Amino acid sequence: MTDPLIELRDTLRAFAREREWDRYHTPKNLAMALIVEAAELAEHFQWLTAEESQSLRDGDKREAVHDELADVLIYLVELADTLGVDLAAAARAKIAKNALKYPVDKARGNAKKYDEL
Amino acid sequence: MTDPLIELRDTLRAFAREREWDRYHTPKNLAMALIVEAAELAEHFQWLTAEESQSLRDGDKREAVHDELADVLIYLVELADTLGVDLAAAARAKIAKNALKYPVDKARGNAKKYDEL
Amino acid sequence: MTDPLIELRDTLRAFAREREWDRYHTPKNLAMALIVEAAELAEHFQWLTAEESQSLRDGDKREAVHDELADVLIYLVELADTLGVDLAAAARAKIAKNALKYPVDKARGNAKKYDEL
Amino acid sequence: MTDPLIELRDTLRAFAREREWDRYHTPKNLAMALIVEAAELAEHFQWLTAEESQSLRDGDKREAVHDELADVLIYLVELADTLGVDLAAAARAKIAKNALKYPVDKARGNAKKYDEL
Repeated sequence: MTDPLIELRDTLRAFAREREWDRYHTPKNLAMALIVEAAELAEHFQWLTAEESQSLRDGDKREAVHDELADVLIYLVELADTLGVDLAAAARAKIAKNALKYPVDKARGNAKKYDEL
Repeated sequence: MTDPLIELRDTLRAFAREREWDRYHTPKNLAMALIVEAAELAEHFQWLTAEESQSLRDGDKREAVHDELADVLIYLVELADTLGVDLAAAARAKIAKNALKYPVDKARGNAKKYDEL
Repeated sequence: MTDPLIELRDTLRAFAREREWDRYHTPKNLAMALIVEAAELAEHFQWLTAEESQSLRDGDKREAVHDELADVLIYLVELADTLGVDLAAAARAKIAKNALKYPVDKARGNAKKYDEL
Repeated sequence: MTDPLIELRDTLRAFAREREWDRYHTPKNLAMALIVEAAELAEHFQWLTAEESQSLRDGDKREAVHDELADVLIYLVELADTLGVDLAAAARAKIAKNALKYPVDKARGNAKKYDEL
């Protein structure tokens, strides 16, 4: 089996190289593109209630939401690649930090989530 | 080998379940959290020139940038999971679309990238 | 009476000039700073229900929220100034467009707000 | 002369009331809409160099950029109104704070702007 993050990184490297787009792919530009795609994703949910936001799972915006999720992943992989960061390793390290920061017995069901614990 | 996106999804499911945080994890909230993390990532680059933004690769903000990249991936995986979307498949499908939209011979080195081709 | 948007623009011009910060204030950098501040504002609301989000009006995060609202306005005024745009006039023109796009009789109480009308 | 921020607030109150859109205008939803508009604004600058980003002043994207600047101001005014915040006063207070935080003699021309001074 191929690691999809590695496969994606290699595909995107070739995609940019063939089109001579590398010059646009500075960390600054990619970080900006990433946030723009994250906002396009959020736009689908902005006027919905929490309950309604669940229904996008099967709704007619399904393909658009798929595409936005993909765009965020694409720019994230390109940004990490440009910075020489192993995304999967970074995520594992961050989850280990979070486990120390939010121990189960203190964090359980706590509305003062994340920032105010 | 384990697929890191699947492994991450399963770890995050357990992490949220143990802390009874699922109730916060509506698509709407996760989309909002994703964009907030993308902005925290972008903040490291906002006043830098394109050239300076390269140097974060080895600079002293390195750990902070790793953590922000990880946070974006974490919320992206959680959002895709809540919506029942296979992220790797969505990215492959999007790249196939992009290849049709930006054929190599037209897109090469073109400053009118992406939105104005 | 002084127009607060003009007063703010002039104060910010002097503030940046004294500190020789103009060189950082390209439209690109200011647009990035604006979105980062908007995200810091959104962060206060991300895990709250719609109802809870009302309560920030008097809560202990009140000063922090004031500061974030101010930061968004500050960067917006600086960006408009750099681009030579009259913000108040632009807003009036946009509202006139919106009035044509969302006529009262069609838009009233419509859940298909804005993007799907 | 009318204060344009007050005038805008009153116009937007009437606009939302006539369309029965108040129910959508929770602080959470407005904060999300604000960040989405800020991202649409940033999108115009994302692939441009710092120099190119200046040229939007007279370019053919001028009207689109005007509209995005207006949208950010519109949601900012609506969010401040919902939270009962006087935007102009909040901006003045924030600038006074910034003047203490970045004294002219220390901040002048300093590349370690804002976050690292």
